[in-house]
Amino acid sequence: MDQKSGIKIVDATMRDGGLVNDFYFEDDLVRALYQTNLATGVDYMEFGYKASKRMFDPAQNGKWKYCDDENIRAIVGENQTNLKIAVMADVGRCDYHEDFLPKSESPIDMIRVATYLDTVDGAVSMIEDAAKKGYEVSCNVMAISKSEQYDLRNALETLAKTQASVLYVVDSYGALYPDQAKRLVDTYLDVAAKYGKQVGMHAHNNLQLAFSNTMLAHELGATWLDGTYDAMGRGAGNCAMELLLGYLEKKGYEKYKMAPALPFLDRYMEGLKRKGVVWGYDTQYLLTGLLNQHPRAAIKFTKEGRNDHDAFLREIE
Amino acid sequence: MDQKSGIKIVDATMRDGGLVNDFYFEDDLVRALYQTNLATGVDYMEFGYKASKRMFDPAQNGKWKYCDDENIRAIVGENQTNLKIAVMADVGRCDYHEDFLPKSESPIDMIRVATYLDTVDGAVSMIEDAAKKGYEVSCNVMAISKSEQYDLRNALETLAKTQASVLYVVDSYGALYPDQAKRLVDTYLDVAAKYGKQVGMHAHNNLQLAFSNTMLAHELGATWLDGTYDAMGRGAGNCAMELLLGYLEKKGYEKYKMAPALPFLDRYMEGLKRKGVVWGYDTQYLLTGLLNQHPRAAIKFTKEGRNDHDAFLREIE
Repeated sequence: MDQKSGIKIVDATMRDGGLVNDFYFEDDLVRALYQTNLATGVDYMEFGYKASKRMFDPAQNGKWKYCDDENIRAIVGENQTNLKIAVMADVGRCDYHEDFLPKSESPIDMIRVATYLDTVDGAVSMIEDAAKKGYEVSCNVMAISKSEQYDLRNALETLAKTQASVLYVVDSYGALYPDQAKRLVDTYLDVAAKYGKQVGMHAHNNLQLAFSNTMLAHELGATWLDGTYDAMGRGAGNCAMELLLGYLEKKGYEKYKMAPALPFLDRYMEGLKRKGVVWGYDTQYLLTGLLNQHPRAAIKFTKEGRNDHDAFLREIE
Repeated sequence: MDQKSGIKIVDATMRDGGLVNDFYFEDDLVRALYQTNLATGVDYMEFGYKASKRMFDPAQNGKWKYCDDENIRAIVGENQTNLKIAVMADVGRCDYHEDFLPKSESPIDMIRVATYLDTVDGAVSMIEDAAKKGYEVSCNVMAISKSEQYDLRNALETLAKTQASVLYVVDSYGALYPDQAKRLVDTYLDVAAKYGKQVGMHAHNNLQLAFSNTMLAHELGATWLDGTYDAMGRGAGNCAMELLLGYLEKKGYEKYKMAPALPFLDRYMEGLKRKGVVWGYDTQYLLTGLLNQHPRAAIKFTKEGRNDHDAFLREIE
């Protein structure tokens, strides 16, 4: 495979960023994001989650937590473009039997199944359901910075035997230093090679390493790379798409262009910030990243407008 | 040499950060920073520049642009500690013959000579003057992301023959991707090894790579690592000291502690921000970094409160 044509860039702005604003994105923004992705050469646009409406009250969340096919279609029509449509679904938090139509009736191209290590059996069922319905499927294994090597390898072997085509390293806590990221990516690549699968990287920026770990994964052989515009995502945010695009463009990947991202950043991401939506690296996220913890305490600290990091560290360590 | 005792961490907050607030740091902050560095285990504290008062009007700059010995002494007394005192001096912008007293009369331990490639002869004169007066000396070669390999190696060979003990990679434009950073650090290490010198890394965060490039340099063999608290520094800022300390502590460097940095960040760096002092990564710095340019256009863009990155890119490219 020609590496320069083989990589896939996934825009996770609405999905990971939706965790920041409860998935309340205006259609105007979503349309602009879709057009931006067409212009920058991004390969997949993740619209949000397909979450269960029984478990998560639609009155309390924006519509992109559910990604009803008709809402996606209102943005993309029949999507006669090269940009593919992805959604994420969490094991145990979706009604995939009913909510996922056959691919032939849906604008969605790819289901990204998100699982923890201890819910891999559930992930396998979801993957097989989605594949049978005709979707491309990836599997994102979350919170692996906490995992034991033995458990992880077992889980990957199980997942690699399914019809998922991509296995994702997900640094949920933004806790991976390059040497740890390398070990994990190498483990994934090793299993993936045995079963003809691809490896992806989804990074968080707690240690200001989201972009560099994404480049590192790519260099090691990961071919699916996630970014979000302005790094919008839970807590410290993700790998900034504009950094990733600038890098790929400079390295000679002709498909990708950074400049078309700028008007979107200037108008829409700046607009979200002006409305008070807050995300991105800050010292509290460094601290949860260092401690290899879920960022929820840091998110609460941020929401409360606290600035006593010294006390915060004593609370969480 | 035991690598874990051999590294030197340099706090450049007042020097590179001084470029953001024209060196107007209150004594209260400077004292707190000094105490913080004692507590975190930082090895050198850079107080600012020794700039020429004839060339740079003292009425228009804070006193740390000049670092008079008496002003340093007002903070540190005779500095009976393990924390050493450094100042920077630019070739052609200081009066080193008069302003630099013999080391025996000064609280300063190290002179960091900053030079461009085309002023190396001037740097050599300054290095020899400082060494003769009894100081430790390093040489920081700026803006090397623009340099030709041949010119750089020649300059390094010249500098390595002086009494400077450390040669610094300085990514002034924050333009170095890891592969480029690696090539440069390897070039420095190669020359340094021939002459028994150490190599340092001073990074900027335009591509959100300041911390990761600093870790990379360390891994390759660089032993002098610069950081600034809250990453305070020109434009996109530097490698955040708290990230660096957290990393070193986690990797088993017992000398370094991250937690004592937090009260300083909470009180003083937050205080500077509340007063309107602005620094740190933003899209405009990504753009000058990508184009391998001095950040001055991005600094102006920031000061003017502009948010039209699309137009900005067309202006600078």
